[in-house]
Amino acid sequence: MEREHFSKKYDEELNEIREKLLEMGGKVEVMIANAMKALVERDSELAEKTIKFDHVINHLEVEIDEKCLQVLAKRQPAARDLRFITLALKIVTDLERIGDQCRNIAMRARELNEEPPLKPYIDLPRMAGAASVMVKEALDAFVRGDDTLAIKVCKDDQQVDDLNEQIQRELLTFMMGDPATISRAMKVNHIAKCLERIADHATNVAEMVIFMVKGKDIRHTTMA
Amino acid sequence: MEREHFSKKYDEELNEIREKLLEMGGKVEVMIANAMKALVERDSELAEKTIKFDHVINHLEVEIDEKCLQVLAKRQPAARDLRFITLALKIVTDLERIGDQCRNIAMRARELNEEPPLKPYIDLPRMAGAASVMVKEALDAFVRGDDTLAIKVCKDDQQVDDLNEQIQRELLTFMMGDPATISRAMKVNHIAKCLERIADHATNVAEMVIFMVKGKDIRHTTMA
Repeated sequence: MEREHFSKKYDEELNEIREKLLEMGGKVEVMIANAMKALVERDSELAEKTIKFDHVINHLEVEIDEKCLQVLAKRQPAARDLRFITLALKIVTDLERIGDQCRNIAMRARELNEEPPLKPYIDLPRMAGAASVMVKEALDAFVRGDDTLAIKVCKDDQQVDDLNEQIQRELLTFMMGDPATISRAMKVNHIAKCLERIADHATNVAEMVIFMVKGKDIRHTTMA
Repeated sequence: MEREHFSKKYDEELNEIREKLLEMGGKVEVMIANAMKALVERDSELAEKTIKFDHVINHLEVEIDEKCLQVLAKRQPAARDLRFITLALKIVTDLERIGDQCRNIAMRARELNEEPPLKPYIDLPRMAGAASVMVKEALDAFVRGDDTLAIKVCKDDQQVDDLNEQIQRELLTFMMGDPATISRAMKVNHIAKCLERIADHATNVAEMVIFMVKGKDIRHTTMA
């Protein structure tokens, strides 16, 4: 009975880590969407809000880290649970850095909003949407231990890279056609790079999930 | 006696993690230097070598991860040792991603080497040197548990950011003065961003070290 009680409490603790991570992921998705909206709709107030929101993500990182350490110290988990918790520790870092990237995007959006519009943004929101889905699916793959979904995320990274290349080419044409656009185009380029980085973080998470599920490391064999 | 034997073996295992991390850090420093040399001296063979070398870093990541998991499972460490190992798990990810950035730099260097030189590089090697020192000192701070050194690393990040801004301004002048330089300038810009990212990784490591030493989180209070 005592043992059963112990197990139930332990499961609850693991679940709490799982749910906190999903909560953090959800908040990060909103940040990506808001940073993009601030850019596309030239909404500097929303940009400001997004920049400030980053501290919520940062606090969640600290909270989840502490939770993981507590469970490691108290429960001394083995095998699968140990992999789960050590992965949670790594994933939380990726999520926090995605938050940093959203903050960077919002900062560039705020700057761009003070200049005449460069062009209507079509590929950037598409890129942001794809990156956001990757983040969501990578986390889902983690909490469900679903390596098929994780493999999909790794493959989807190509799509984001392709969009990024397309944006680079378009910006190059803009800049060469009219040097007055160069400064703004560089900022748009920076935003594209931030989105690429977000997708990279999602891919990293997905690769680690495959590692967790398979129990062996594919990060640097078939995938990389 | 049994206990003493156990402790000695345990200490050896922690030392092994420490040494492997330093080894990985040393290799990453060489990668930064070589990627830069490939660019400055227009040495595409060295660029190629640097790109290929990334797999050595990747293998070290897998190896150190496994070592950490083994120690966690076998020794069930508490308190300070637990923080040390969970941090090692996070730091190894940063080091691996620094390797990825060096690979990116070498790839851009290889492309730039096929075009006429844009300009002599002065600030980029300076930026690379500063970033490399940050990586070294962040790792030293970790293995020694030296929070003063870690704080220095966080402060030094400003220097890299300043150099990056200077490079951005210079590239802008180049591009606006002669649109024929735009494509190459964008590649140089990409390299500067990779170096900035390397310095960010070092800063992240240093922030985590301060967290480990102080036992509380300063990552998102005074520093961020």
